[in-house]
Amino acid sequence: MLKTYNYKELTADQLQQLLDRNTDPNHAIQDTVSQIIQEVRTHGDQALKAYAKQFDKVDLEKLYLDADEIEELAMGISRDQMRALEIAFQNIYKFHQTQLKRERVVETMPGVKCWREVRPIEKVGLYIPGGSAVLPSTLLMLGIPAKIAGCKEIVVCSPPQNNGKINGFVAYCLRLLKIEKIYLVGGAQAVAAMAFGTESIPKVNKIFGPGNQFVTKAKSIVQGISDVSIDMPAGPSEVLVIADDSANPAYVAADLLAQAEHGSDSQAILVCTDKAIAKAVEKEVESQLQVLPRRELAEKAMDNSYIILADSLEEAMQFSNAYAPEHLILETNEWKPLINKVLNAGSVFLGHLTPESAGDYASGTNHTLPTSGYARSYSGVSVDSFVKKITFQQIDEQGLQQIGSTVEILAELEGLQAHKNAVSIRLKDRK
Amino acid sequence: MLKTYNYKELTADQLQQLLDRNTDPNHAIQDTVSQIIQEVRTHGDQALKAYAKQFDKVDLEKLYLDADEIEELAMGISRDQMRALEIAFQNIYKFHQTQLKRERVVETMPGVKCWREVRPIEKVGLYIPGGSAVLPSTLLMLGIPAKIAGCKEIVVCSPPQNNGKINGFVAYCLRLLKIEKIYLVGGAQAVAAMAFGTESIPKVNKIFGPGNQFVTKAKSIVQGISDVSIDMPAGPSEVLVIADDSANPAYVAADLLAQAEHGSDSQAILVCTDKAIAKAVEKEVESQLQVLPRRELAEKAMDNSYIILADSLEEAMQFSNAYAPEHLILETNEWKPLINKVLNAGSVFLGHLTPESAGDYASGTNHTLPTSGYARSYSGVSVDSFVKKITFQQIDEQGLQQIGSTVEILAELEGLQAHKNAVSIRLKDRK
Repeated sequence: MLKTYNYKELTADQLQQLLDRNTDPNHAIQDTVSQIIQEVRTHGDQALKAYAKQFDKVDLEKLYLDADEIEELAMGISRDQMRALEIAFQNIYKFHQTQLKRERVVETMPGVKCWREVRPIEKVGLYIPGGSAVLPSTLLMLGIPAKIAGCKEIVVCSPPQNNGKINGFVAYCLRLLKIEKIYLVGGAQAVAAMAFGTESIPKVNKIFGPGNQFVTKAKSIVQGISDVSIDMPAGPSEVLVIADDSANPAYVAADLLAQAEHGSDSQAILVCTDKAIAKAVEKEVESQLQVLPRRELAEKAMDNSYIILADSLEEAMQFSNAYAPEHLILETNEWKPLINKVLNAGSVFLGHLTPESAGDYASGTNHTLPTSGYARSYSGVSVDSFVKKITFQQIDEQGLQQIGSTVEILAELEGLQAHKNAVSIRLKDRK
Repeated sequence: MLKTYNYKELTADQLQQLLDRNTDPNHAIQDTVSQIIQEVRTHGDQALKAYAKQFDKVDLEKLYLDADEIEELAMGISRDQMRALEIAFQNIYKFHQTQLKRERVVETMPGVKCWREVRPIEKVGLYIPGGSAVLPSTLLMLGIPAKIAGCKEIVVCSPPQNNGKINGFVAYCLRLLKIEKIYLVGGAQAVAAMAFGTESIPKVNKIFGPGNQFVTKAKSIVQGISDVSIDMPAGPSEVLVIADDSANPAYVAADLLAQAEHGSDSQAILVCTDKAIAKAVEKEVESQLQVLPRRELAEKAMDNSYIILADSLEEAMQFSNAYAPEHLILETNEWKPLINKVLNAGSVFLGHLTPESAGDYASGTNHTLPTSGYARSYSGVSVDSFVKKITFQQIDEQGLQQIGSTVEILAELEGLQAHKNAVSIRLKDRK
């Protein structure tokens, strides 16, 4: 089922084909999404209610749930589930709270002081996929850094279930995050509502979160036509596992399938330095697949996936850096010397006992990560994603004397006389 | 010439109108730019040479200058100019090198270790505007953080002068940065070349730099159709000065005009708590304008600008935070207590002796900053812009026992059985 290639035997073109994921599979839906955005801009809440009826099969009187309604739903889940969500919350919080640091003042010349200060993005919008699939973990992954950053307004949108409510797990996460309102809006219409605002839903400065191809397309469109920014372009999820002869084929297979069950467009790549292990992994994939509830999706994703045979871990890392995977798992005893060789990846899992699932849910790292090769230039979501760093500077009498003539010369050579004047007029008073 | 408004008397609609800058003035040029991009994708170097002929009025045999050619041009500038560029280089380097910090390992549970490591973006493209205007300072502002980040390939594009060369100041900055090649390509075609690659010009992962409306439009288009990312959307430059009765009207006027001379679409806003000072600034603007070489541009920009009268510095800051200026100058003795009140701004200049020009050239802070209200969600360029932060995690036997059941429960409640299996299969071997 899995195609196998020898790294050394790949031509440049073949290699490029293996590296390319379809980064714009949504061209066909451009018109639909543009129309939804236009409708929401023009008709606001009324449009959102009509889409809830059309897509979510529910008649909504109001477009949100308040604190009491959230509390009631949250109390419907089991104690074990509450406890698991709390542990995830704590670990994610613990890891993310170390990400904000005060920076020191740099005196670049005597009397010229420069520094950066961190300020939260005031209004952020979190899109939490819902409906049939339920993703409370995504709410934690976005809500926790937003809270740590100190964002003043956190707008959460998630599609309503057909009883007009949300899932109890999502409700419990809202409670942990002390967010007292959730808007019952899904899909492209949620993105449009947060980008432009409606009667019920506040306009935000930045929109976060994964979603289906409609949501993704809507994020990319509103980024171009409004003053809202987005966390990152999102594509289908992917994993790349590097395994050598120390790998356990059953573990490797389980990790590949955990990726594959996300959707038929997911990719699960194995780069292996041992032919026998690669064969054993293939067998394990076949047998583990049989008992998966989402077997059909996973099978399609595996058809879309492949194995690369490499001569060495070095060579395997070369391929991985070229691919720039969202998730990279190093299933080898020799993971330590590989750390410095990881150049492009979203999140990296080290050794045989560090499955991606741990990071997806509970270890503490964020699971909102760059896909489709964007790990070459984007980082995953962190507290940094929810703040700005503003530069400040203060120059005193001594500093002005020190830096004045330099600024005058540079302004002059760029032909910007008024820039020069701003310094000269101040220097003149000091002579 | 400058329109004056009372902050208290503004209706919500009037306020909104004053806050809105045209963030998409380039809609009309969409077709031209798309066509240029298509040409460069299809015909590569050949298209670039044709555009050099058409736009830059020059026949290019090769599309770059090498180290020797750069050296020769660099040696043509004066000693004072060299010295000024060196001081700017040193200050910018000094400030930016403090921006990268090693982060510590967080053990979120016993045996569950998580951390982030910084990796440079491998290939970056820097666009340096040129031609008639000469902007060596922009090369320093982009090249220095790229060097500090450790980017392996730094591609610099700048339009050729009509002698087929570049300016000596730009050449000297290349020398300071130890960059040994510059590509003679300007405009939208330079952005297209760096996004897709040509025979001469390497494809990059991220494109940086300001430019005219063609460059800006091209950056926004390639961001949507390739896997390249961009530093930020760029619009016309702007300053907001807050002044009280301690302000020197001549200094304030000089700062407003330094902004205005950038171009007719620049904005220079004064928010003043003292009516007499505001009047005096208006007078100063009139008289300083008379002697500016770029008077015509500056005059048009001032027509596009305005004064807001506020009752207090508190109220002035309210307006400023709503406007989210690229540059904010606080010309008051009371700047200290205002620092914490700055929520949205690109770069902030404190007190009477800290003109924006200092930061534009030489104090050390970056001058590539968010305009058009994007300071609400974007930071200016820094070393952060040239790196990714990759998360790593490592779980040992103890860690797996600690976190295992939490992951199993969460995977189960999201209905992702294969995610659960990846943990269960490992736990099973340990019982």
